[in-house]
Amino acid sequence: MAWDIPFAELRSLLGERFLTTQAARAEHSRDESHFTPVLPDAVAWPESTAEVSAIVKICAAHGCPVVPWGVGSSLEGHVLAVKGGVTLNMNRMNRVLAVHAEDMDVVVQPGCTREALNTELRATGLFFPIDPGANASLGGMAATRASGTTAVRYGTMKDNILALEVVLSDGRVIRTGSRAKKSSTGYDLTRLFIGSEGTLGIITELTLKLHGQPEAVSSAVVDFPDIGSAISAVITTIQAAIPMARIEFVDETAIRAFNAYEKTTYPERPHLFLEFHGSPSGVAEQAELAGEIMTAMGGSDFRHAATTEARNQLWKMRHNALFAAKSTKPGCIVLTTDVCVPISRLAEAVLETRADIDASPLTGPMVGHVGDGNFHCCLLLDPDDPRDKEAALDLAHRMAERALRLGGTVSGEHGVGMGKKKYLEEEHGAAWEVMGLIKQALDPQNLMNPGKLVKEG
Amino acid sequence: MAWDIPFAELRSLLGERFLTTQAARAEHSRDESHFTPVLPDAVAWPESTAEVSAIVKICAAHGCPVVPWGVGSSLEGHVLAVKGGVTLNMNRMNRVLAVHAEDMDVVVQPGCTREALNTELRATGLFFPIDPGANASLGGMAATRASGTTAVRYGTMKDNILALEVVLSDGRVIRTGSRAKKSSTGYDLTRLFIGSEGTLGIITELTLKLHGQPEAVSSAVVDFPDIGSAISAVITTIQAAIPMARIEFVDETAIRAFNAYEKTTYPERPHLFLEFHGSPSGVAEQAELAGEIMTAMGGSDFRHAATTEARNQLWKMRHNALFAAKSTKPGCIVLTTDVCVPISRLAEAVLETRADIDASPLTGPMVGHVGDGNFHCCLLLDPDDPRDKEAALDLAHRMAERALRLGGTVSGEHGVGMGKKKYLEEEHGAAWEVMGLIKQALDPQNLMNPGKLVKEG
Ligand SMILES: Cc1cc2nc3c(=O)[nH]c(=O)nc-3n(C[C@H](O)[C@H](O)[C@H](O)COP(=O)(O)OP(=O)(O)OC[C@H]3O[C@@H](n4cnc5c(N)ncnc54)[C@H](O)[C@@H]3O)c2cc1C
Ligand SMILES: Cc1cc2nc3c(=O)[nH]c(=O)nc-3n(C[C@H](O)[C@H](O)[C@H](O)COP(=O)(O)OP(=O)(O)OC[C@H]3O[C@@H](n4cnc5c(N)ncnc54)[C@H](O)[C@@H]3O)c2cc1C
Repeated sequence: MAWDIPFAELRSLLGERFLTTQAARAEHSRDESHFTPVLPDAVAWPESTAEVSAIVKICAAHGCPVVPWGVGSSLEGHVLAVKGGVTLNMNRMNRVLAVHAEDMDVVVQPGCTREALNTELRATGLFFPIDPGANASLGGMAATRASGTTAVRYGTMKDNILALEVVLSDGRVIRTGSRAKKSSTGYDLTRLFIGSEGTLGIITELTLKLHGQPEAVSSAVVDFPDIGSAISAVITTIQAAIPMARIEFVDETAIRAFNAYEKTTYPERPHLFLEFHGSPSGVAEQAELAGEIMTAMGGSDFRHAATTEARNQLWKMRHNALFAAKSTKPGCIVLTTDVCVPISRLAEAVLETRADIDASPLTGPMVGHVGDGNFHCCLLLDPDDPRDKEAALDLAHRMAERALRLGGTVSGEHGVGMGKKKYLEEEHGAAWEVMGLIKQALDPQNLMNPGKLVKEG
Repeated sequence: MAWDIPFAELRSLLGERFLTTQAARAEHSRDESHFTPVLPDAVAWPESTAEVSAIVKICAAHGCPVVPWGVGSSLEGHVLAVKGGVTLNMNRMNRVLAVHAEDMDVVVQPGCTREALNTELRATGLFFPIDPGANASLGGMAATRASGTTAVRYGTMKDNILALEVVLSDGRVIRTGSRAKKSSTGYDLTRLFIGSEGTLGIITELTLKLHGQPEAVSSAVVDFPDIGSAISAVITTIQAAIPMARIEFVDETAIRAFNAYEKTTYPERPHLFLEFHGSPSGVAEQAELAGEIMTAMGGSDFRHAATTEARNQLWKMRHNALFAAKSTKPGCIVLTTDVCVPISRLAEAVLETRADIDASPLTGPMVGHVGDGNFHCCLLLDPDDPRDKEAALDLAHRMAERALRLGGTVSGEHGVGMGKKKYLEEEHGAAWEVMGLIKQALDPQNLMNPGKLVKEG
């Protein structure tokens, strides 16, 4: 289809907030994935829903693709403008619009980051729990159905959004959901847009559920003689229904990377990083129960992160896993995998993966939100060595196939982007065609982040 | 559009499990709502997904509507075959197909009821928490996005379904989701079918999340001098983040009905019925905290339901609210309302509603899952007195408008059916049109429970 970029119209709408410079385009040509950058034709910085709607209307009239952009921290090439067009950087729509402390909800613009939101909320005694390692935008997190270390307790983005405002492919603005905690009035459009990766519309406002800051918090680390016993401890803990706030697996290779990057001295063995939330006595009870399980499975005594600082340090370290990994191989790029399996199959999945990486020429620290059956490895590769890339893609492919074989999914939280699209037919079968029907119904011109998620028409 | 019932083909497919008798049709002409019965042209009892698919294919070839049917306990006329066609009674597909205790999930057929499932699960130490008062089918519960007394703790159907198998309007069978606890691979079709009320396809299998039976359970009732203080106690309890398993409001009129129907002697004042789940010490702690709040708000001391029997008795009584209400006015029919508002607006919503009913000629006990901001009143009307019906519809209308004015929804859990369709445009605005686009994409012939949920094309 022939189309053009409506340069003049967008410039007259946005002035300096519409750029076609090489620098602006290059800055929006990649995310944190290994994919070769692709430059959009232009970048726009809208400041309001009305402007987003106006931009989309102009683009639609010219058949020009639109790619929304949060902070570009995604890991599968989601934001690459593979069909060209205009990238919409949402970072000027970053306000917290209303805090309803009494209802434990908050209305935010999509460019607001999770850290900025939690800073703003600090005085209220409430917080927003979802924490992908990166300081992602809440719009991007919704669009990727993100989760992170706390999902085992608080759920994912799908569980923590009450309502959305969305600009559709024809510029129409809709609101999905309300501030009521539940509703049975029609199709769940809120959940439909969550995880749609910019392919169905642009999220311009989110109403998020908040949670009370727990009265007591306690964190601990525990190490194990081998991966098998660490994972068994996780499975038993989850099956015992201990309401873990966090239960993260960090393998030996990752620990080595942490020790080097963060100057820590953790024993170079598989670890679990744990956190408990609740009342002081509840937290003590949970920690005791979990401790008993860990010990029975061969774990060391808990080493507690006693102070708030020590705790923040611990989770900052965990969130920097990718960068710690990278630092072990200067100049490398990272291919991050992200599978999720039923918890009963987790030991198999992790052990086979570890063996697979060990048998390859690559280094690949493994970390995981294992309470949900979700884990990653960070495969380090030399960008100039095609054999590295091939080996990494091969490992990633076997991980994806393994996850499907074990009844799981090829992405627990990072999403589809460029990297996982090739598995959607296998994972979803005919349901993938249904996704295509929905895309066609909502974006008949295929303008919203085209080339992603659904089968090409 | 011209269409016909493929009598011969369906009879040859299903034999005795395809009926066109007046009795079978009449039995499937109504649910538990006040709507005038509408007879389907025929009733079919499929026994497998393959049969459902075959029936739908046959019907699609003849342009014949298909209306799925669980146990017909819905309250808004959902199952009425308003365009005629074949009703599919799912009660022969009622097996529990697989219990995965280690993953805390279960695979069931849609005709399995929630009570049958929990009976089957008893030995596993696991349970499925969602409890609409009726012993509904799990397919019907998914299709209406049902919830109930425990949603405040365990969420609604949308939070407790991992995966679905669905027969689409052309007979294609799809699977949505997997047994992994989370996934970011594409549009959330699972949530799209939850709450779709049979208008997008027929659910033929569900994979449900299970929860561990709590180690300790304790229930209590507490009464208040007036509605305002009872609701204030609820709001404070929720805001204090006490993890209530149940917190149910029962007004004075409902208590009077219970006392008459169940031969109980509760003080005729507004009540809260409470339940706590957790470890023994956790439950004790929660009950103490909640008790302090209730007392501060003017509540009586807790009267505990000490034994399992007493507890079951309490919740059975609560679940029989509709029948208790009915028994106070022999021969009456009931119009049940179902609004949900942000918790901060709950007192206003309940008090204005109570005043409104009191000013009307009708009796209307009020009960509610108030921890979620959701409440009902059971308006009792003489079916032969048109003024009663008019008064009830008028009250229900004002309740719906009030809910929308307070930022809520016209249905917290019962769904749209016939009764709430007229509010969807006001509640959802342009988003309702998007629902129409999705319906059209998935059911272009408008064969799946036609006349419901979306705007008529
Ligand atoms: C170190 C590191 C650790 C990570 N750990 C985790 C983790 O634990 N869990 C996890 O889930 N993810 C993790 N991620 C991945 C990433 O942070 C998440 O996917 C995040 O949700 C992306 O948000 P973003 O703002 O960067 O979105 P972007 O990367 O800018 O965009 C992501 C997708 O969302 C779309 N999008 C963005 N904004 C909007 C909008 N307003 N409306 C519609 N579509 C929009 C884009 O078009 C794109 O398709 C990690 C990333 C890094 C670099
Ligand atoms: C006394 C009483 C108390 C109640 N309390 C509550 C409550 O607390 N919370 C609550 O949420 N509800 C409550 N309800 C309403 C009702 O029980 C729920 O809506 C329930 O989910 C309906 O299930 P069902 O099996 O009866 O479905 P049905 O009434 O048979 O059908 C309901 C809808 O689902 C569709 N459907 C049924 N099966 C399928 C399938 N397999 N695939 C696709 N679509 C299907 C039907 O076409 C129809 O549109 C109550 C009802 C009564 C009578």
